[in-house]
Amino acid sequence: MAQPNVSHSVTIRVELSNTPGSLGRLTTAIGEAGGNILGIDLVEVEGERIVRDVTVLAADPDHAQEIRERAEEVQGVHVRSVLDRTLRLHLGGKIEVCGKAPLKDRDDLSMAYTPGVARVSMEIAERPVSVHTYTIKANSVAIVSDGSAVLGLGNIGPHAAIPVMEGKAQLFKEFAGIDAFPICLKTSSPAEVIAAVEAMEPVFGGINLEDIAAPACFEIEEALKSRLDIPVFHDDQHGTAVVVLAALRNAAKVVDRKLDDMTVVIAGAGAAGVACAKILNNAGVGRILVSDRKGLIFSGREEFTGAKLWLAESTNQDRRMGDVSSALVGADVFVGVSGPGIVTAADIATMNKRSIVFALANPTPEVMPDEIQDIAAVIATGRSDFPNQINNVLCFPGIFRGALDARAMSITEGMKLAAADAISAAVSEDELSPSYVIPSVFNRNVATAVADAVARAAQAEGITRHLS
Amino acid sequence: MAQPNVSHSVTIRVELSNTPGSLGRLTTAIGEAGGNILGIDLVEVEGERIVRDVTVLAADPDHAQEIRERAEEVQGVHVRSVLDRTLRLHLGGKIEVCGKAPLKDRDDLSMAYTPGVARVSMEIAERPVSVHTYTIKANSVAIVSDGSAVLGLGNIGPHAAIPVMEGKAQLFKEFAGIDAFPICLKTSSPAEVIAAVEAMEPVFGGINLEDIAAPACFEIEEALKSRLDIPVFHDDQHGTAVVVLAALRNAAKVVDRKLDDMTVVIAGAGAAGVACAKILNNAGVGRILVSDRKGLIFSGREEFTGAKLWLAESTNQDRRMGDVSSALVGADVFVGVSGPGIVTAADIATMNKRSIVFALANPTPEVMPDEIQDIAAVIATGRSDFPNQINNVLCFPGIFRGALDARAMSITEGMKLAAADAISAAVSEDELSPSYVIPSVFNRNVATAVADAVARAAQAEGITRHLS
Repeated sequence: MAQPNVSHSVTIRVELSNTPGSLGRLTTAIGEAGGNILGIDLVEVEGERIVRDVTVLAADPDHAQEIRERAEEVQGVHVRSVLDRTLRLHLGGKIEVCGKAPLKDRDDLSMAYTPGVARVSMEIAERPVSVHTYTIKANSVAIVSDGSAVLGLGNIGPHAAIPVMEGKAQLFKEFAGIDAFPICLKTSSPAEVIAAVEAMEPVFGGINLEDIAAPACFEIEEALKSRLDIPVFHDDQHGTAVVVLAALRNAAKVVDRKLDDMTVVIAGAGAAGVACAKILNNAGVGRILVSDRKGLIFSGREEFTGAKLWLAESTNQDRRMGDVSSALVGADVFVGVSGPGIVTAADIATMNKRSIVFALANPTPEVMPDEIQDIAAVIATGRSDFPNQINNVLCFPGIFRGALDARAMSITEGMKLAAADAISAAVSEDELSPSYVIPSVFNRNVATAVADAVARAAQAEGITRHLS
Repeated sequence: MAQPNVSHSVTIRVELSNTPGSLGRLTTAIGEAGGNILGIDLVEVEGERIVRDVTVLAADPDHAQEIRERAEEVQGVHVRSVLDRTLRLHLGGKIEVCGKAPLKDRDDLSMAYTPGVARVSMEIAERPVSVHTYTIKANSVAIVSDGSAVLGLGNIGPHAAIPVMEGKAQLFKEFAGIDAFPICLKTSSPAEVIAAVEAMEPVFGGINLEDIAAPACFEIEEALKSRLDIPVFHDDQHGTAVVVLAALRNAAKVVDRKLDDMTVVIAGAGAAGVACAKILNNAGVGRILVSDRKGLIFSGREEFTGAKLWLAESTNQDRRMGDVSSALVGADVFVGVSGPGIVTAADIATMNKRSIVFALANPTPEVMPDEIQDIAAVIATGRSDFPNQINNVLCFPGIFRGALDARAMSITEGMKLAAADAISAAVSEDELSPSYVIPSVFNRNVATAVADAVARAAQAEGITRHLS
């Protein structure tokens, strides 16, 4: 069973009879049921009865239910209600749209709305580039998803995707001051997604594609990049790839190796796998092997198109065949962006010594870190409960901040490489160790450093918009 | 020339030599140029020189330029810069997207984002109606425009429309606590607008269509109403119509008349004109005549389709021909939703005595109030500088608040009539007078009263969604 945790915490509202020992019996019962009490608050005293809120960490919903039942059995205790804290946090949504200044009186209204606003509109009509100066387009990002590949949950649809996209909007604001709004599209036709995003482009300064399944995500991203003059970035591809490269640069230092001398095996040829292969290729990694469900991809295996054709042509130059396990023999790095438990500790043991293992499937990695801690030199996962968490939040706020600050019209490969360098540089040489190759997601300096590096790269590449 | 006003105010940053009289000479020069000084702030003292910001109301941009030039001529004064306060207010946009709670630490992140958010997404995937409970859909409205009929500016396009839509979003939040986001669409094809809005529906609890030209607006609204199960409301049509009806109910009381006994002439058969005719028809107005550019609309004038076919069939039962001027002879009410100066004081003089004139063209009404103040009994305009301002802000925040609160799946004619009644009731019998038939836009009680009335109407009509 999982550890009791905040995301499964509940607030149990209880009436206790005002006799000695009832609170003690309750806390004992909760403890015996495996619940972890976070806090106890007094709600009110009603004559003989005391009403309290007891907040308890549970392991999962069944465990929370079990704790409730145990509490109900305690003598002198009546359970009034049990509130799931995560659901409660989501009531009415997690984000809001606010004016930056209040509209107190007619003067405020006459500048923010009619008649004053007409002059601003005419300024934009006459000088179109000024939309980037006088509107939210200067600082806004659309978080676009069709809900077809949400977290590890799969194709749950656009409505069920909204809480994830709202969370992402919070992260954009919290880490980079960006005004991001979720756009969850009720279509999975690439042509319709492209048309909808193209139509709504005017108000947005950037497009963050999110949780869109492969191969549709490739077609959608390519089409939007070619049609729009604002940055378009599929985070599941490039965000993951940037953070993987950042971690790999530091991991390579830990094992004292060079990227151009390494063999990297990538399990998974979806959105993240393709993007990881591309960025590692651009970063000069020596040999890259990528496997999909049928095994290693090589030129001639079948009639490939699109992203897999690129993989077949650009990776695995020796045309090696076989599965992931066979590919790992003698390899230096494993990057898993596939599914739970697809490789074993024995597979990892066949890699070169001082191997680097990034097992990023969430919530259950391709191989559990504790099974290989004596085998691999550096281990990273997507989880927060192990060292070295590969988390996109290290990348996307800063990369969009930098692109918006520089008025970049796209996010180039050079900007992504600059972002990866900035993330790896956030771990100093002194701090670098096998269990610390990537900074914490709560290191607020990362987004700023990434933004600066990305903006400089955009300026150096000359892809920035001139506002005057 | 217009009066100096806030929407054309500028902040002039000046360096004054530190000798007696220079500030006096500057303020005198600004006053002589017709500028109205709102305030003077000290910025800094630099040895011999004092830097001040002088905020001045001007009549228009040319006047502001003239004031600047006069200031530059003053001895001992150096103008460093002139900032247009309205443009400055718009820098980077007027709205922002914020999290409702901060993401301080891993516990916050584990509830608002992964892993906790997955449980909320699964709840919505399994019980789709819960999207109205656990996401921003509970409180969000899309402000959708193609920029084809913005304010009085015409077809200025989706980019130039953004400042107006941002202002509208501010009003939604300020008056009704609604999280509204501007969606400005880079297409004027009704089919493409419909497809884009339908695609993005998941995250929105309501659709406010805005500043879309007739006749496309009718087709777009009808299609979206039939395809979506959330409220769809074209504010330029129905918002105007609701406030016109509210004002007319009170104006009728002032002149002691009944609606069913009145003849109303509506000039303009665009979005607002059609909607006014419909709501006045539903409210039981006796006779309604509507004119477009070709004159009065009557059955058989030509092969009408769409909204004009409805007008031809449902108004002007006597099939009167002619222009607006001829229609006004013996009429009781004039509602102008057309263009500047299309009727004269002499036309108004031919109306029945104690006539009611709503001249709503903006910024220049169909006839200026001061020309008819001795002729008409009640005069209203769309402007804030005359009594009786007919302003949609009296309607749209409250009508959407009520619809969202009641979980209404549409906005019905009954809900609009209820909104109009609530607005007119906000002026008490004691307060009612020819110059006060409609409440102030800054009467914060109006939105609440409208919301309550609209929610009750929705419940009575049984069009509310059941969440459990």
